[in-house]
Amino acid sequence: MRRTPAPPAAHPARTGALRTRIPLSWSVGFTKSPATPPRRFIPAAVPGAVQLDWARAEGWQDHFIGDNWKQYRWMEDVWWRYRATFDRPKLARGQRLFFVSKGIDYQFVIFINGAPVHEQEGMFTPVAIDITPFRADAIEILVMPAPKSFPEPDNRSQANQSCKPAVSYGWDFHPRLIPLGIWDETYLELRPAAHLDRPDLTYALNDTFDEARVSLCASVALPVRKGGNARGLRGCALRWKIVGPDGRAVFRRRVAAAPGAAVLSATVRNPRLWWPHDQGDQPLYTSVLELVGPGGAVIDAMEQRFGIRRVRLVMQPDAWSEPAVFPKTRSVPPITFEINGRRIFCKGSNWVSPDVFPGAITAGTHRALLEMVKKANMNMLRSWGGAIVQKDSFFELCDELGIMVWQEFPLSCNRYEGTHAYLRVLEQEARSIIRRIRHHPCLVIWCGGNELFNEWSGMTDQDYAFRLLNLVCYQLDRDRPFIPTAPLMGMAHGGYTFADRDGGEVYQVFRNAANTAYSECGCVATCSAAWLRRIVPEEDLEALDNASQPETEAGKALLRRVQWTQVPRYFPEARSLEELVERSQLLQAEGLKCIFEEARRQKPHCSLVLNWVLNEPCPRIVNCSIIGWPAEPKKACYAAGLSCRPVLSSARVPKFTWQPGERFEAEFWLLNDAPEAVPAGRVSAVLRFGGDEIAMGTWAHDGAAANTNLRGPALYAALPDDAAGLFELVLQYEGRPEWDSTYVFLARKNS
Amino acid sequence: MRRTPAPPAAHPARTGALRTRIPLSWSVGFTKSPATPPRRFIPAAVPGAVQLDWARAEGWQDHFIGDNWKQYRWMEDVWWRYRATFDRPKLARGQRLFFVSKGIDYQFVIFINGAPVHEQEGMFTPVAIDITPFRADAIEILVMPAPKSFPEPDNRSQANQSCKPAVSYGWDFHPRLIPLGIWDETYLELRPAAHLDRPDLTYALNDTFDEARVSLCASVALPVRKGGNARGLRGCALRWKIVGPDGRAVFRRRVAAAPGAAVLSATVRNPRLWWPHDQGDQPLYTSVLELVGPGGAVIDAMEQRFGIRRVRLVMQPDAWSEPAVFPKTRSVPPITFEINGRRIFCKGSNWVSPDVFPGAITAGTHRALLEMVKKANMNMLRSWGGAIVQKDSFFELCDELGIMVWQEFPLSCNRYEGTHAYLRVLEQEARSIIRRIRHHPCLVIWCGGNELFNEWSGMTDQDYAFRLLNLVCYQLDRDRPFIPTAPLMGMAHGGYTFADRDGGEVYQVFRNAANTAYSECGCVATCSAAWLRRIVPEEDLEALDNASQPETEAGKALLRRVQWTQVPRYFPEARSLEELVERSQLLQAEGLKCIFEEARRQKPHCSLVLNWVLNEPCPRIVNCSIIGWPAEPKKACYAAGLSCRPVLSSARVPKFTWQPGERFEAEFWLLNDAPEAVPAGRVSAVLRFGGDEIAMGTWAHDGAAANTNLRGPALYAALPDDAAGLFELVLQYEGRPEWDSTYVFLARKNS
Repeated sequence: MRRTPAPPAAHPARTGALRTRIPLSWSVGFTKSPATPPRRFIPAAVPGAVQLDWARAEGWQDHFIGDNWKQYRWMEDVWWRYRATFDRPKLARGQRLFFVSKGIDYQFVIFINGAPVHEQEGMFTPVAIDITPFRADAIEILVMPAPKSFPEPDNRSQANQSCKPAVSYGWDFHPRLIPLGIWDETYLELRPAAHLDRPDLTYALNDTFDEARVSLCASVALPVRKGGNARGLRGCALRWKIVGPDGRAVFRRRVAAAPGAAVLSATVRNPRLWWPHDQGDQPLYTSVLELVGPGGAVIDAMEQRFGIRRVRLVMQPDAWSEPAVFPKTRSVPPITFEINGRRIFCKGSNWVSPDVFPGAITAGTHRALLEMVKKANMNMLRSWGGAIVQKDSFFELCDELGIMVWQEFPLSCNRYEGTHAYLRVLEQEARSIIRRIRHHPCLVIWCGGNELFNEWSGMTDQDYAFRLLNLVCYQLDRDRPFIPTAPLMGMAHGGYTFADRDGGEVYQVFRNAANTAYSECGCVATCSAAWLRRIVPEEDLEALDNASQPETEAGKALLRRVQWTQVPRYFPEARSLEELVERSQLLQAEGLKCIFEEARRQKPHCSLVLNWVLNEPCPRIVNCSIIGWPAEPKKACYAAGLSCRPVLSSARVPKFTWQPGERFEAEFWLLNDAPEAVPAGRVSAVLRFGGDEIAMGTWAHDGAAANTNLRGPALYAALPDDAAGLFELVLQYEGRPEWDSTYVFLARKNS
Repeated sequence: MRRTPAPPAAHPARTGALRTRIPLSWSVGFTKSPATPPRRFIPAAVPGAVQLDWARAEGWQDHFIGDNWKQYRWMEDVWWRYRATFDRPKLARGQRLFFVSKGIDYQFVIFINGAPVHEQEGMFTPVAIDITPFRADAIEILVMPAPKSFPEPDNRSQANQSCKPAVSYGWDFHPRLIPLGIWDETYLELRPAAHLDRPDLTYALNDTFDEARVSLCASVALPVRKGGNARGLRGCALRWKIVGPDGRAVFRRRVAAAPGAAVLSATVRNPRLWWPHDQGDQPLYTSVLELVGPGGAVIDAMEQRFGIRRVRLVMQPDAWSEPAVFPKTRSVPPITFEINGRRIFCKGSNWVSPDVFPGAITAGTHRALLEMVKKANMNMLRSWGGAIVQKDSFFELCDELGIMVWQEFPLSCNRYEGTHAYLRVLEQEARSIIRRIRHHPCLVIWCGGNELFNEWSGMTDQDYAFRLLNLVCYQLDRDRPFIPTAPLMGMAHGGYTFADRDGGEVYQVFRNAANTAYSECGCVATCSAAWLRRIVPEEDLEALDNASQPETEAGKALLRRVQWTQVPRYFPEARSLEELVERSQLLQAEGLKCIFEEARRQKPHCSLVLNWVLNEPCPRIVNCSIIGWPAEPKKACYAAGLSCRPVLSSARVPKFTWQPGERFEAEFWLLNDAPEAVPAGRVSAVLRFGGDEIAMGTWAHDGAAANTNLRGPALYAALPDDAAGLFELVLQYEGRPEWDSTYVFLARKNS
């Protein structure tokens, strides 16, 4: 499963008509001191990570097999030096040579022909250096050791004074492996003397959604010359057009180019609005800005795709009436998303980095996972603050697929103290992140990070980090909601297992909860048997086959993990690896269906449910992920897809295990998150034991309004006296089989 | 009680050696259009209000008598024009003439010799205009009608698009009377050509509190001259010293003066720390900045007094452990104040403007009230967001008296929509407010305003107003805590009566509450009988004397107000006005004692209790105020003072009314908010019926640690079978009578 690096491109690639990209061929080596050169250089894949380069050069096995990850530990603490030499490109008159990198991880110095020209801390701030004056033919990048606020012990708190995602420092679902190196596109670029800086595009949509005012802040970069630069733009113009989703220009404008920033305004009437995929279309507009020379030739051009929609956080309709009595506290904060004036029930999942090494993530990685998300009827992903802010392709695909993104800044489960040094980097990184992705319509909220107002983080609303992030978001992207962390008052995280230690199952736990949003919740399952056999040493796997206690530490640890799945509790007879996997994935699937549908039944008080977690950064023996690495859906992914259908018949059932002869009960529901009403209809319920069926009854309802659920009657049926093993509750929607639902339960005598 | 305006000063007053103030003599008139001049000018008191001027000129009775306030209604909707003519002062060489006003309420245009020179919206932003070039001898100020976001009906929501305090638009304790006019010091000032701008002083105290780094951002203003200004400062110097509380300089520095801002730094070692009065001293430092000419003469000077202390909001010690189970929400936000590393139990009151007309408030008004606050052992005032940010003397006195100030921005009980126009004024006003008062050590927190996250306001954390206030506070005053509103999660407001509609008394209501802070809570009482007779028309007062239902609307309204006091419920026999007043003030006093002491018993989970409300803007028939207008303490003020003693013996009693023969119960407590431990001691409890006493027992305790309460045993005693009327529970602390406590209860047969 190791990735083969893309071969270094030998020839300049044209990325457009006006700028020429020159790829670089890199090698890398390490030293124990920044002053001494590496003794050995090996080929480096860029983008990539020094760890991947080294493992490749040494022919190591994958890091996710057994405890191979441990052999990477020393790589955190050395200095890595990247080197690229190249033939000095011939420049046309006035042409400039830039060194461009979209991301270098994490703290580094760039040398041109041996001279330091740029120092930076922060992987999210791109680099673009005009190196024309250096007459360069060599670039080196010295990457510092991984940042740590203390040298030991190894744990995530070492990340509490940096903007390096904390997950790499070790997490329950992530090995300790701290990526370092060039992680995003990096190249030389030939640019015209006068060229465009990336323009800032913003827009405001009016309350009737029939007019968008678009603003573009454009500026032209000119090489510094004595006596000023105005001469360099004489006769030049800025030409701006907005191209609609159908490819036709909806706006054109031309102004004289001048040094400094120009703010251009456009009005788009009756814009086609962007919607999440379950609510409407995803029309996208393109802003094209051109710098035009005196003769009419296009000197430089920049394109940016964007979508037009309004997003707000609005109050749950019942929230203002609480609390009712004195002494009276505040009402819960809003967490209902409203898109283009319509309240949306958000259902989806938490997104973590799909690879331990961000440099290994490609648009293909994103596409494979995001298409599964859409297929699972999920309309939102929470891009979790423990991980990186994804590369551009993630947001581009979410724009196209109609998946809303909840984006967190890289803070998670730590106390990030507001020191001067930390806040300086946080502000720089936050500004870079916001500028890079704020034009994406999929992006619906900024969040300061994960679980920071809980005990294990120990931060509060008073911490400077949140006050600063709120400030930066307000300045750069005021119209997008901002929250300091999740969960906030009313919202909740957890649980993460089908049944908790006290035996409380998801059926009771979520029935008794009354939160406004479940931004993390889920159940664990194992990965596939094939993956288990690959990543777990054979001798450890034997622990599962033996009925008795395993003897090795590794075997015991494995058994503890399996116990999280609850399979031993419900299916003590399951013994083969295949059966274990199947049972664990069944419990995860049924648990998730319960959670998703119960959260939906609590609408409109509740308006959001995101399971922990969609994916994983490498194969994990047992994890809450519903898609195993790299993109293998578990049973729960399909199950969640059924529970997230805009319309479905649903049952509220109090528990999983039933006694033979016991009276089974289920409450009928019709769940409707669609923007259309559901007409009157009939649903029948049937219990299935192998080939036998017990009819429970039929519910004839009068129809449900758009975006509104319907609660039906409770139905009962006596289970057969000889009921044993799994059985199904099937809801059949007359004439609409696509709204049918099936739930699995267990009949078992009390032991 | 009407104030006599200070006579306009006829001669220039020297406010220092270097600047000369020239008072102005004003007149004012109104018109129905901004274009036409007033037909009549009357003398104007400055500072003051146009309403007070008009009432004085017309010989009106006080606005707080009966419904006299109604006759002021038209004054909101006209244009007021202030006029001052003066002899053109002779200027020395280079000297400048400034027009200075610390506050004009609310929207206005300033004309110099008939020409408009300055337009402004906002009463908190001072004005300083160099009018030298105008060769002026007349100043006019056109004050616009009161701002309203809609013309009718008259209510507080009309203030929801302005920074005008909403209370003036009508409140349960405030008549509809919207002040307009010049409300703070306003004069002409002769300044040297080069003069100092008000410097910005900030400091940071280290974690061991033994070193303060003070920064002063100083800049010199110079009249604009062709060819630059550098020449004007040649040979000049800035001389800075910091004078300690004992009058001796602890730091001196001199730097060459230059145009633009200079940042000077000082280190104060072992600074004497400022404390609230119940925790330590109030040492104050003075920063003296001088602009010195080439010959050594002092050209201009500025002084600023400040105190050195650190303030933080820290978590309640038990808060991290909650919530305990999944799904798990956030922990409550911190609301425990820590001064210089020490947790402080904050007890005090809510401060509202001590006069309907801010222009009528003087340092004397502030001193009279604030000395009562200190005497009542209160260490904090919440300067409520419905009202104005007080004039400087309020903060100066709080610095001196050791009273912490919780300052709110002027937002209260409205939905302040974040329109461009509103946010512009809000930002300007917030910046002015912060710059004016941030050097005061008494100021311990910024709060966005009152009850904005509750139903009656309808705002949320997402509203731009709060995001902007966070931004401005972070930029200008980062080290002082900021909260968007009160109450927040965990905190609470209310109740406001001795017993609620369902009969729940403060004894049960607050015993059952478990809030982290009670930032508003209280009980109503009537004003004194003398005030009642003065402000209530005689025929209405009769309604109280007649046992039967009053016949007039006014009489009915009066009776409803009296019913809030609960006197008719507990003392149906009270009939004389004097007895009614006494009983109502008794219930308020006993209710407040219960609330204060119960909140203290809930320490450390609870760390703050502020009664609603300390004072009032004019005499009110029935109000929660514990000091009647202008400065008449009610019984509750003395009672609160007893309950706020740093150390006291206290009793938790379940109710107010007892049956004859019933078993009376009380739980012993020793409350200690002092920074010192209380040694072992003995407390006895006695019930007193007239001359009779029933001993309830004695509690011998082992002592209480500093800032820590002690919970003692519950004691019981059978009440006499003939018990009737009021009786007392007296706690006697052996050898420390200043820690004794007395509570009053009622014995009464069930009717």
